[in-house]
Amino acid sequence: MVGETGGVRVQEGAHVDFVKGHGTQNDFVLLPDPGVALDLTPEFVSALCDRQRGIGADGVLRVATAGALRDAGVLATVPDGIDDNDWFMDYRNGDGSIAEMCGNGVRVFAHYLAAHDLVAGNDFVVGSRAGARPVVVHARNGTHAEVSVSMGKVVFGSDSKATIGGTTYAGVAVDVGNPHLACVVESMTAETLDDIDLTAPITYDTGDFPAGVNIELITAPTPSTVDGVTGEVQMRVHERGVGETRSCGTGTVAAAAAALRSIGRNTGAIIVAVPGGRITVTIRDNDSELRGPSILVGAGMLNEGWL
Amino acid sequence: MVGETGGVRVQEGAHVDFVKGHGTQNDFVLLPDPGVALDLTPEFVSALCDRQRGIGADGVLRVATAGALRDAGVLATVPDGIDDNDWFMDYRNGDGSIAEMCGNGVRVFAHYLAAHDLVAGNDFVVGSRAGARPVVVHARNGTHAEVSVSMGKVVFGSDSKATIGGTTYAGVAVDVGNPHLACVVESMTAETLDDIDLTAPITYDTGDFPAGVNIELITAPTPSTVDGVTGEVQMRVHERGVGETRSCGTGTVAAAAAALRSIGRNTGAIIVAVPGGRITVTIRDNDSELRGPSILVGAGMLNEGWL
Repeated sequence: MVGETGGVRVQEGAHVDFVKGHGTQNDFVLLPDPGVALDLTPEFVSALCDRQRGIGADGVLRVATAGALRDAGVLATVPDGIDDNDWFMDYRNGDGSIAEMCGNGVRVFAHYLAAHDLVAGNDFVVGSRAGARPVVVHARNGTHAEVSVSMGKVVFGSDSKATIGGTTYAGVAVDVGNPHLACVVESMTAETLDDIDLTAPITYDTGDFPAGVNIELITAPTPSTVDGVTGEVQMRVHERGVGETRSCGTGTVAAAAAALRSIGRNTGAIIVAVPGGRITVTIRDNDSELRGPSILVGAGMLNEGWL
Repeated sequence: MVGETGGVRVQEGAHVDFVKGHGTQNDFVLLPDPGVALDLTPEFVSALCDRQRGIGADGVLRVATAGALRDAGVLATVPDGIDDNDWFMDYRNGDGSIAEMCGNGVRVFAHYLAAHDLVAGNDFVVGSRAGARPVVVHARNGTHAEVSVSMGKVVFGSDSKATIGGTTYAGVAVDVGNPHLACVVESMTAETLDDIDLTAPITYDTGDFPAGVNIELITAPTPSTVDGVTGEVQMRVHERGVGETRSCGTGTVAAAAAALRSIGRNTGAIIVAVPGGRITVTIRDNDSELRGPSILVGAGMLNEGWL
């Protein structure tokens, strides 16, 4: 038996729990939904993410196992490398569309699983539409955690450039599952980076980036005092289709790879300071890793018929 | 005994409950705090209203009685016309500053009180720093309500004008406790109103409005099919210090008064359609009334140390 509740088709008697959290201020509404009772229509997701009408977030993370999502018809198949019993991050953008992965989202998702004892240990796999994502939950309590997630291999493309408000920045194309133009600007300081107007018109080479591009502006790396870390950079990011955001997981990976390359290195660890916080990115020959904070702000229940 | 929890000084063992709600998409975090245990520092309020770091809202409404707020030192005295046992809307702007009144906020506040049986009947007084606000809660359940609130006497000032993106709009100064320039534009349609760029530079007569002004652009009133309502207008509003918002309670009152005046009337009822919904405003000789929806989206609890 199903009943209609404010546009959400739920099992009779079910209610909608939510958790609000963020990773370096990239924020999410998590919907614990092990029975896959919620119908995440674009109308429901966009209203929930609407910052005035709903709870407000950059995206929604439904929490269910890969097998349950397949059995409910949300996934056609369980992707390779993911077990039926693995928790799967069913990610939706704020407009209700489906996205394959979100580096900040998976950290918050993993934190939620560990904080609620839904996984054994602190080293496990999170399923995503982009495949299995191995995570490690380091120090954590119910509110704060530090989480590492494997982000896969980074692939450099050609040199390219972007013009923002009349100033041209040289950079390099970086593929982190999605397209980036990472511009390490030797002459830029934290202060001059802050002063750039990222609402100004932006042009880039549409031949190099036919599907659009995320653009990172990055200071040259300075030595880090953190053990095992090669350097530190400041970064701001302009996400395609969105504009400037306070953080972008894949953007920090692209920035770290480009920063290492600017000092003649293929691998190493870089701290990337974004407006929303600090991320440590490790670049390896065939993998990359994002390590950073997750904060679970609070939890509650939606009122019946709120939509 | 008090303990420090993420910047909030709370009684030992207390936790922070919250409710998220909105009135025509002017949104609020309500903090039920009958014991006045929370220290609403600007740091706490601005983090809670931050849409990425916190729950996100235009403002915070603490729920406590006037007497409890006085006894805790939040109010120096209980304003005239308010009893110690009346519930008092302790309103804070998103930046943590104190505001005297908010017409949309008081509707949501009254809805919360009625939905949680904290008041006897549906006709009661809500205290505010601007004085007693009589309210009537019409049809309601735990999620939806329609609420009327008395907004006091409307006082017209001189004719004035504003220039927005190179176009000059003639209007009239209206004092609804705060300053407004209400511009009824005869030639404007709903479509041309939609097309105006309210992010463009705005100039106005600083002699007429030394403390800044909220500017309403209003279509000429058309006849209403609703019984007892004189007409309907569309409105967009630019709030001082904020920019365009989806709704502004005092702005709809100013708009209704100016719309009635444009057809030679001093009193009557006008439906004001704003981007966030529809409000019915009644203008009387010595009073005005705002009637419109309130939606309580959900409720929850903040995690310890989230800030």
